[in-house]
Amino acid sequence: MDLAGIRRLLEPGPIVLVSSHWQNHHNISTMGWHCVMEFTPSLIGCMITSANHSYNMIEKSGECVINIPTADMLDTIVGIGNTSGKRVNKFKKYGLTPGEAQTVSAPVIEECYAHFECRVADRRMLAKYNFFILEVTHARCALWPRFPKTVHYRGEGIFMESGRNIARPEKFRPQNL
Amino acid sequence: MDLAGIRRLLEPGPIVLVSSHWQNHHNISTMGWHCVMEFTPSLIGCMITSANHSYNMIEKSGECVINIPTADMLDTIVGIGNTSGKRVNKFKKYGLTPGEAQTVSAPVIEECYAHFECRVADRRMLAKYNFFILEVTHARCALWPRFPKTVHYRGEGIFMESGRNIARPEKFRPQNL
Repeated sequence: MDLAGIRRLLEPGPIVLVSSHWQNHHNISTMGWHCVMEFTPSLIGCMITSANHSYNMIEKSGECVINIPTADMLDTIVGIGNTSGKRVNKFKKYGLTPGEAQTVSAPVIEECYAHFECRVADRRMLAKYNFFILEVTHARCALWPRFPKTVHYRGEGIFMESGRNIARPEKFRPQNL
Repeated sequence: MDLAGIRRLLEPGPIVLVSSHWQNHHNISTMGWHCVMEFTPSLIGCMITSANHSYNMIEKSGECVINIPTADMLDTIVGIGNTSGKRVNKFKKYGLTPGEAQTVSAPVIEECYAHFECRVADRRMLAKYNFFILEVTHARCALWPRFPKTVHYRGEGIFMESGRNIARPEKFRPQNL
Protein backbone atom coordinates (compact mmCIF):
# COMPACT_ATOMS: atom_id res chain seq x y z
CA MET A 1 0.00 0.00 0.00
CA ASP A 2 1.24 3.48 -0.94
CA LEU A 3 2.37 5.29 2.23
CA ALA A 4 0.55 8.50 1.31
CA GLY A 5 -2.61 6.41 0.88
CA ILE A 6 -3.09 5.84 4.60
CA ARG A 7 -5.24 9.00 4.68
CA ARG A 8 -8.08 7.02 3.08
CA LEU A 9 -8.33 4.99 6.29
CA LEU A 10 -7.05 7.38 8.93
CA GLU A 11 -8.49 10.78 7.98
CA PRO A 12 -12.13 9.73 8.62
CA GLY A 13 -11.12 9.43 12.29
CA PRO A 14 -11.57 5.78 13.37
CA ILE A 15 -10.52 4.36 16.72
CA VAL A 16 -7.23 2.53 16.15
CA LEU A 17 -5.29 -0.13 18.04
CA VAL A 18 -1.65 0.70 18.67
CA SER A 19 0.66 -2.29 19.14
CA SER A 20 4.15 -2.01 20.59
CA HIS A 21 7.07 -4.17 21.65
CA TRP A 22 9.75 -3.64 24.29
CA GLN A 23 11.98 -6.07 26.16
CA ASN A 24 10.26 -9.26 25.02
CA HIS A 25 6.84 -7.92 25.79
CA HIS A 26 3.96 -7.00 23.42
CA ASN A 27 1.21 -4.53 24.25
CA ILE A 28 -1.87 -2.97 22.62
CA SER A 29 -3.77 0.21 23.40
CA THR A 30 -6.87 1.88 22.02
CA MET A 31 -6.39 5.37 20.58
CA GLY A 32 -8.73 8.03 19.20
CA TRP A 33 -6.61 11.19 19.37
CA HIS A 34 -4.64 11.03 16.14
CA CYS A 35 -4.40 12.84 12.80
CA VAL A 36 -2.66 12.71 9.46
CA MET A 37 0.09 15.37 9.34
CA GLU A 38 1.78 14.92 5.94
CA PHE A 39 1.65 12.76 2.79
CA THR A 40 5.41 12.53 2.05
CA PRO A 41 7.02 11.65 4.36
CA SER A 42 3.88 9.94 5.63
CA LEU A 43 3.36 11.44 9.10
CA ILE A 44 0.81 10.75 11.82
CA GLY A 45 0.47 12.75 15.04
CA CYS A 46 -1.05 11.09 18.11
CA MET A 47 -1.55 11.70 21.79
CA ILE A 48 -1.02 8.78 24.17
CA THR A 49 -1.32 9.60 27.85
CA SER A 50 1.95 9.00 29.70
CA ALA A 51 0.05 7.00 32.33
CA ASN A 52 -0.45 4.29 29.68
CA HIS A 53 1.94 1.36 29.64
CA SER A 54 2.12 1.78 25.85
CA TYR A 55 3.53 5.29 26.19
CA ASN A 56 6.74 4.01 27.75
CA MET A 57 7.03 1.08 25.37
CA ILE A 58 6.72 3.32 22.30
CA GLU A 59 8.95 6.03 23.76
CA LYS A 60 11.69 3.50 24.61
CA SER A 61 11.52 1.34 21.47
CA GLY A 62 10.87 4.29 19.14
CA GLU A 63 8.38 2.15 17.22
CA CYS A 64 4.78 1.00 17.03
CA VAL A 65 2.12 -0.26 14.62
CA ILE A 66 -1.18 1.55 14.08
CA ASN A 67 -3.79 -1.09 13.30
CA ILE A 68 -7.26 -0.26 11.94
CA PRO A 69 -9.90 -2.52 13.51
CA THR A 70 -13.34 -3.08 11.97
CA ALA A 71 -16.73 -2.64 13.61
CA ASP A 72 -17.12 -6.37 14.34
CA MET A 73 -14.18 -5.97 16.76
CA LEU A 74 -15.98 -3.40 18.94
CA ASP A 75 -16.00 -5.44 22.15
CA THR A 76 -12.28 -6.17 21.74
CA ILE A 77 -11.61 -2.45 21.18
CA VAL A 78 -13.50 -1.55 24.37
CA GLY A 79 -11.82 -4.34 26.34
CA ILE A 80 -8.32 -3.28 25.28
CA GLY A 81 -9.04 0.32 26.20
CA ASN A 82 -10.11 -0.71 29.68
CA THR A 83 -7.26 -3.10 30.58
CA SER A 84 -3.68 -2.24 31.52
CA GLY A 85 -0.89 -4.03 29.68
CA LYS A 86 1.19 -3.95 32.85
CA ARG A 87 -0.64 -6.99 34.19
CA VAL A 88 -2.30 -8.61 31.17
CA ASN A 89 -1.10 -10.03 27.84
CA LYS A 90 -3.80 -8.46 25.68
CA PHE A 91 -3.05 -10.59 22.60
CA LYS A 92 -3.86 -13.69 24.68
CA LYS A 93 -6.75 -12.19 26.60
CA TYR A 94 -8.56 -11.03 23.45
CA GLY A 95 -7.57 -13.92 21.17
CA LEU A 96 -5.57 -11.69 18.81
CA THR A 97 -2.69 -12.89 16.63
CA PRO A 98 0.62 -11.00 16.71
CA GLY A 99 2.14 -11.03 13.23
CA GLU A 100 5.59 -10.03 12.09
CA ALA A 101 6.00 -6.49 10.79
CA GLN A 102 8.34 -5.67 7.91
CA THR A 103 10.20 -2.67 9.30
CA VAL A 104 9.65 -2.54 13.09
CA SER A 105 9.87 -4.93 16.03
CA ALA A 106 6.33 -4.14 17.18
CA PRO A 107 3.81 -6.80 16.08
CA VAL A 108 0.93 -6.23 13.70
CA ILE A 109 -2.52 -7.39 14.86
CA GLU A 110 -3.47 -9.88 12.16
CA GLU A 111 -7.23 -9.55 12.78
CA CYS A 112 -7.18 -5.84 11.89
CA TYR A 113 -8.01 -4.49 8.44
CA ALA A 114 -4.82 -2.42 7.98
CA HIS A 115 -1.40 -2.05 9.60
CA PHE A 116 0.74 1.07 9.48
CA GLU A 117 4.26 0.41 10.77
CA CYS A 118 5.73 3.53 12.36
CA ARG A 119 8.86 4.90 13.91
CA VAL A 120 8.89 7.90 16.24
CA ALA A 121 10.05 10.79 14.04
CA ASP A 122 9.90 13.74 16.45
CA ARG A 123 9.83 13.77 20.26
CA ARG A 124 9.63 17.53 20.79
CA MET A 125 5.95 17.46 21.72
CA LEU A 126 6.25 14.58 24.20
CA ALA A 127 7.27 16.41 27.35
CA LYS A 128 4.48 18.97 27.23
CA TYR A 129 1.68 17.18 25.33
CA ASN A 130 2.45 13.40 25.24
CA PHE A 131 2.15 13.91 21.49
CA PHE A 132 4.12 11.57 19.23
CA ILE A 133 4.94 12.46 15.63
CA LEU A 134 5.25 9.14 13.80
CA GLU A 135 6.59 8.38 10.34
CA VAL A 136 4.93 5.47 8.56
CA THR A 137 7.64 3.14 7.27
CA HIS A 138 5.43 0.42 5.81
CA ALA A 139 1.67 0.09 5.25
CA ARG A 140 -0.54 -2.78 4.20
CA CYS A 141 -4.27 -3.37 4.21
CA ALA A 142 -6.81 -5.99 3.19
CA LEU A 143 -7.82 -5.85 -0.47
CA TRP A 144 -11.51 -6.14 0.34
CA PRO A 145 -13.74 -4.38 1.20
CA ARG A 146 -12.30 -1.11 -0.09
CA PHE A 147 -14.10 0.78 2.68
CA PRO A 148 -14.42 -1.33 5.82
CA LYS A 149 -16.94 -0.43 8.51
CA THR A 150 -14.98 1.38 11.22
CA VAL A 151 -15.85 2.67 14.68
CA HIS A 152 -15.36 6.23 15.89
CA TYR A 153 -15.46 7.27 19.53
CA ARG A 154 -17.74 10.01 20.91
CA GLY A 155 -16.81 9.71 24.61
CA GLU A 156 -19.07 8.51 27.45
CA GLY A 157 -18.96 4.93 26.14
CA ILE A 158 -20.70 5.83 22.86
CA PHE A 159 -19.30 4.86 19.45
CA MET A 160 -20.35 5.85 15.94
CA GLU A 161 -20.15 3.38 13.07
CA SER A 162 -19.02 4.64 9.67
CA GLY A 163 -21.99 5.11 7.37
CA ARG A 164 -22.58 5.41 3.63
CA ASN A 165 -20.12 6.91 1.17
CA ILE A 166 -20.89 9.97 -0.95
CA ALA A 167 -18.65 10.70 -3.94
CA ARG A 168 -18.13 14.25 -5.27
CA PRO A 169 -14.84 14.00 -7.25
CA GLU A 170 -16.28 16.05 -10.11
CA LYS A 171 -16.55 19.05 -7.79
CA PHE A 172 -12.85 19.01 -6.89
CA ARG A 173 -9.96 20.76 -8.56
CA PRO A 174 -7.70 17.91 -9.65
CA GLN A 175 -4.81 19.01 -7.43
CA ASN A 176 -7.13 18.93 -4.39
CA LEU A 177 -8.22 15.32 -4.75
CA MET B 1 -20.87 23.92 26.27
CA ASP B 2 -18.17 22.48 28.54
CA LEU B 3 -14.77 23.00 26.87
CA ALA B 4 -13.65 19.42 27.55
CA GLY B 5 -16.87 18.23 25.91
CA ILE B 6 -15.74 19.16 22.41
CA ARG B 7 -14.33 15.60 22.08
CA ARG B 8 -17.90 14.33 21.56
CA LEU B 9 -17.99 16.20 18.25
CA LEU B 10 -14.33 16.31 17.22
CA GLU B 11 -12.91 12.89 18.15
CA PRO B 12 -15.07 11.00 15.61
CA GLY B 13 -13.07 12.84 12.93
CA PRO B 14 -15.47 15.02 10.90
CA ILE B 15 -14.45 17.50 8.26
CA VAL B 16 -14.58 20.95 9.87
CA LEU B 17 -14.75 24.50 8.55
CA VAL B 18 -12.15 26.87 9.98
CA SER B 19 -13.09 30.54 9.96
CA SER B 20 -10.58 33.33 10.48
CA HIS B 21 -10.33 37.13 10.47
CA TRP B 22 -7.44 39.45 9.68
CA GLN B 23 -7.33 43.07 8.56
CA ASN B 24 -11.04 43.50 7.92
CA HIS B 25 -11.25 40.28 5.94
CA HIS B 26 -13.02 36.99 6.79
CA ASN B 27 -12.05 33.61 5.37
CA ILE B 28 -13.10 29.94 5.64
CA SER B 29 -11.23 26.76 4.85
CA THR B 30 -12.08 23.06 4.95
CA MET B 31 -9.94 20.90 7.24
CA GLY B 32 -9.68 17.17 7.92
CA TRP B 33 -6.29 16.85 9.58
CA HIS B 34 -7.05 17.63 13.22
CA CYS B 35 -7.19 15.88 16.57
CA VAL B 36 -8.09 16.43 20.18
CA MET B 37 -4.89 16.80 22.27
CA GLU B 38 -6.07 17.50 25.82
CA PHE B 39 -9.25 17.96 27.88
CA THR B 40 -8.05 20.73 30.26
CA PRO B 41 -6.86 23.05 28.87
CA SER B 42 -8.98 22.07 25.87
CA LEU B 43 -6.43 21.61 23.07
CA ILE B 44 -6.81 20.82 19.39
CA GLY B 45 -3.93 20.09 17.01
CA CYS B 46 -4.40 20.76 13.29
CA MET B 47 -2.39 20.90 10.09
CA ILE B 48 -3.20 23.70 7.63
CA THR B 49 -0.95 23.85 4.59
CA SER B 50 1.00 27.12 4.46
CA ALA B 51 -0.11 27.58 0.84
CA ASN B 52 -3.63 28.25 2.16
CA HIS B 53 -4.74 31.83 2.62
CA SER B 54 -6.16 30.78 6.01
CA TYR B 55 -2.72 29.74 7.27
CA ASN B 56 -1.45 33.31 7.18
CA MET B 57 -4.65 34.75 8.59
CA ILE B 58 -4.60 32.38 11.58
CA GLU B 59 -0.85 32.73 12.10
CA LYS B 60 -1.07 36.53 12.08
CA SER B 61 -4.26 36.98 14.11
CA GLY B 62 -3.48 34.10 16.47
CA GLU B 63 -7.15 33.10 16.39
CA CYS B 64 -9.76 31.07 14.52
CA VAL B 65 -13.08 29.28 14.97
CA ILE B 66 -13.50 25.57 14.28
CA ASN B 67 -17.06 25.07 13.03
CA ILE B 68 -18.69 21.63 12.71
CA PRO B 69 -20.85 21.45 9.57
CA THR B 70 -23.57 18.85 9.08
CA ALA B 71 -24.03 16.45 6.16
CA ASP B 72 -26.64 18.64 4.44
CA MET B 73 -23.83 21.18 3.92
CA LEU B 74 -21.70 18.79 1.84
CA ASP B 75 -21.68 20.82 -1.36
CA THR B 76 -20.70 23.94 0.60
CA ILE B 77 -17.90 21.99 2.29
CA VAL B 78 -16.54 20.82 -1.07
CA GLY B 79 -16.89 24.26 -2.61
CA ILE B 80 -15.02 25.97 0.23
CA GLY B 81 -12.21 23.43 0.00
CA ASN B 82 -11.82 24.13 -3.71
CA THR B 83 -11.85 27.95 -3.67
CA SER B 84 -9.11 30.30 -2.54
CA GLY B 85 -10.03 33.05 -0.08
CA LYS B 86 -7.50 35.32 -1.74
CA ARG B 87 -9.97 36.18 -4.49
CA VAL B 88 -13.38 35.21 -3.13
CA ASN B 89 -15.50 36.16 -0.11
CA LYS B 90 -16.60 32.65 0.80
CA PHE B 91 -19.32 33.76 3.22
CA LYS B 92 -21.00 35.60 0.34
CA LYS B 93 -20.31 32.99 -2.32
CA TYR B 94 -21.80 30.14 -0.24
CA GLY B 95 -24.57 32.11 1.45
CA LEU B 96 -23.13 31.65 4.94
CA THR B 97 -23.73 34.01 7.87
CA PRO B 98 -20.77 35.32 9.85
CA GLY B 99 -21.75 35.61 13.50
CA GLU B 100 -19.98 37.28 16.36
CA ALA B 101 -17.77 35.10 18.51
CA GLN B 102 -17.47 35.61 22.28
CA THR B 103 -13.71 35.51 22.72
CA VAL B 104 -12.04 35.95 19.30
CA SER B 105 -12.31 38.32 16.35
CA ALA B 106 -12.80 35.46 13.86
CA PRO B 107 -16.48 34.96 12.94
CA VAL B 108 -18.52 31.86 13.71
CA ILE B 109 -20.41 30.29 10.78
CA GLU B 110 -24.00 30.47 11.99
CA GLU B 111 -25.19 27.61 9.74
CA CYS B 112 -22.83 25.11 11.42
CA TYR B 113 -23.86 22.81 14.26
CA ALA B 114 -21.07 23.80 16.66
CA HIS B 115 -18.45 26.52 17.05
CA PHE B 116 -15.19 26.18 18.94
CA GLU B 117 -13.44 29.52 19.38
CA CYS B 118 -9.67 29.05 19.51
CA ARG B 119 -6.46 30.94 20.09
CA VAL B 120 -3.10 29.68 18.86
CA ALA B 121 -1.46 28.22 21.97
CA ASP B 122 1.82 26.86 20.59
CA ARG B 123 3.64 27.73 17.36
CA ARG B 124 6.61 25.39 17.74
CA MET B 125 5.32 22.91 15.16
CA LEU B 126 4.49 25.54 12.52
CA ALA B 127 7.84 25.93 10.79
CA LYS B 128 8.41 22.24 10.19
CA TYR B 129 4.87 20.81 10.02
CA ASN B 130 2.37 23.68 9.54
CA PHE B 131 0.81 22.23 12.68
CA PHE B 132 -1.13 24.59 14.95
CA ILE B 133 -1.81 23.77 18.59
CA LEU B 134 -5.02 25.60 19.47
CA GLU B 135 -6.64 26.22 22.83
CA VAL B 136 -10.42 26.35 22.84
CA THR B 137 -11.52 29.49 24.63
CA HIS B 138 -15.29 29.17 24.12
CA ALA B 139 -17.53 26.45 22.72
CA ARG B 140 -21.19 26.31 21.82
CA CYS B 141 -23.34 23.89 19.88
CA ALA B 142 -26.96 23.36 18.87
CA LEU B 143 -29.07 21.62 21.51
CA TRP B 144 -30.60 19.24 19.00
CA PRO B 145 -29.90 16.70 17.63
CA ARG B 146 -27.43 15.44 20.23
CA PHE B 147 -25.51 13.61 17.48
CA PRO B 148 -25.71 15.45 14.15
CA LYS B 149 -24.92 13.66 10.90
CA THR B 150 -21.37 14.67 10.01
CA VAL B 151 -19.15 14.06 6.98
CA HIS B 152 -15.68 12.53 7.07
CA TYR B 153 -13.20 12.71 4.22
CA ARG B 154 -11.54 9.65 2.66
CA GLY B 155 -9.57 11.43 -0.10
CA GLU B 156 -10.16 11.20 -3.86
CA GLY B 157 -13.40 13.15 -3.61
CA ILE B 158 -15.10 10.51 -1.44
CA PHE B 159 -16.80 11.31 1.86
CA MET B 160 -18.25 9.06 4.54
CA GLU B 161 -21.38 10.03 6.45
CA SER B 162 -21.54 9.25 10.16
CA GLY B 163 -23.66 6.17 10.81
CA ARG B 164 -25.51 4.65 13.73
CA ASN B 165 -24.43 4.95 17.37
CA ILE B 166 -23.53 1.96 19.52
CA ALA B 167 -23.39 2.45 23.30
CA ARG B 168 -21.15 0.33 25.52
CA PRO B 169 -20.77 2.43 28.70
CA GLU B 170 -21.29 -0.61 30.94
CA LYS B 171 -18.07 -2.11 29.60
CA PHE B 172 -15.93 0.91 30.61
CA ARG B 173 -14.10 1.55 33.82
CA PRO B 174 -15.72 4.76 35.16
CA GLN B 175 -12.47 6.76 34.93
CA ASN B 176 -12.16 5.83 31.23
CA LEU B 177 -15.54 7.16 30.13
